[in-house]
Amino acid sequence: MYPKSLQELIEAFRKLPGVGEKSAERYALNITDMQEEDVRRFAQALVDVKTKLRQCKICGNLSEEDECEICKDTSRNAKQIVVVQSAKDVLAMERLEEFNGTYHVLNGLLSSSKGIMPEDLNIDTLIKRAQEAEEIILATSTTMDGEMTALYLNKILKKECPSVLVTRIAHGLPSGGFLDYADEMTLAHALSGRRKVEE
Amino acid sequence: MYPKSLQELIEAFRKLPGVGEKSAERYALNITDMQEEDVRRFAQALVDVKTKLRQCKICGNLSEEDECEICKDTSRNAKQIVVVQSAKDVLAMERLEEFNGTYHVLNGLLSSSKGIMPEDLNIDTLIKRAQEAEEIILATSTTMDGEMTALYLNKILKKECPSVLVTRIAHGLPSGGFLDYADEMTLAHALSGRRKVEE
Repeated sequence: MYPKSLQELIEAFRKLPGVGEKSAERYALNITDMQEEDVRRFAQALVDVKTKLRQCKICGNLSEEDECEICKDTSRNAKQIVVVQSAKDVLAMERLEEFNGTYHVLNGLLSSSKGIMPEDLNIDTLIKRAQEAEEIILATSTTMDGEMTALYLNKILKKECPSVLVTRIAHGLPSGGFLDYADEMTLAHALSGRRKVEE
Repeated sequence: MYPKSLQELIEAFRKLPGVGEKSAERYALNITDMQEEDVRRFAQALVDVKTKLRQCKICGNLSEEDECEICKDTSRNAKQIVVVQSAKDVLAMERLEEFNGTYHVLNGLLSSSKGIMPEDLNIDTLIKRAQEAEEIILATSTTMDGEMTALYLNKILKKECPSVLVTRIAHGLPSGGFLDYADEMTLAHALSGRRKVEE
């Protein structure tokens, strides 16, 4: 019913995660109101992201060069490696401005339901890097797949690099969380992960 | 923190209505996972929408040609014209598959707060079309600006084309609506707009 070009743009927007018919329509109609220069810049940004970005050869993070900014930064501690699911998690960690080590981006999680196997993830390169590392911090999500992936990585790292310290990020009550709203799993982890209160 | 091309794409997505930082990030990261061909098609669709689409010379609807599909369709009743705010409303009406007349897209509503005046809207062309029409159905929204616009159009149409029938879409309780949840304005309209029950 819409003109062909508009229909095609609506379909393109619909392919984005969580975008339904109504939102896609709103976005596409909004494009007709934008300045042509801004629309061309948007189109160019799409193509640039797809053609210029690749995975950092060392850590798997997104980068426009062979090695990402973090891996190239010699002031960072390459012996401490936080293992995350995606490039987005790197950004979340970097926002803290507390961590001065490096990252390893798996680009996914093991999943029996989705059929994602170890060879589908950046695990080989992690094992190579672990030979030189002091600590591997497993920071995959605390979901079923995240926990499974952490368990698997712990097992294989213990086997391949027995000298490296493998840790897991803490799992417990979030800040501002109420006990009576927490699910049982969270509460059980919060209890089992308790620490001595420092004086 | 993200590579430059990714940052630019995030900013482009952020300009879409209702898209915040988190969604823009998710959309942009999703582009890195898409097939290059799909991304190029997306980029082309953006540019096409901006460069190929224009307003139908007759009704103001979006079209790739001088006249839109609806205005060109001689099986439709050009003497009955539904006046709407935007091209999106045309689609909503067309989905009903009940109306066989034509449309007139104002491309906005009069608004004293936003400073939108009659000369900013497709009103001149409506008055010209009204000379040949039998009925003008004012289907602007039942918001303050929509009502103001309908009042204004009624006044000017009565003056310029006294022979045309000007009607307003019904304003009342929506389907599935409960009386006790309806706001006073809706309820007042539902009452004043009551109709005799047909046997």
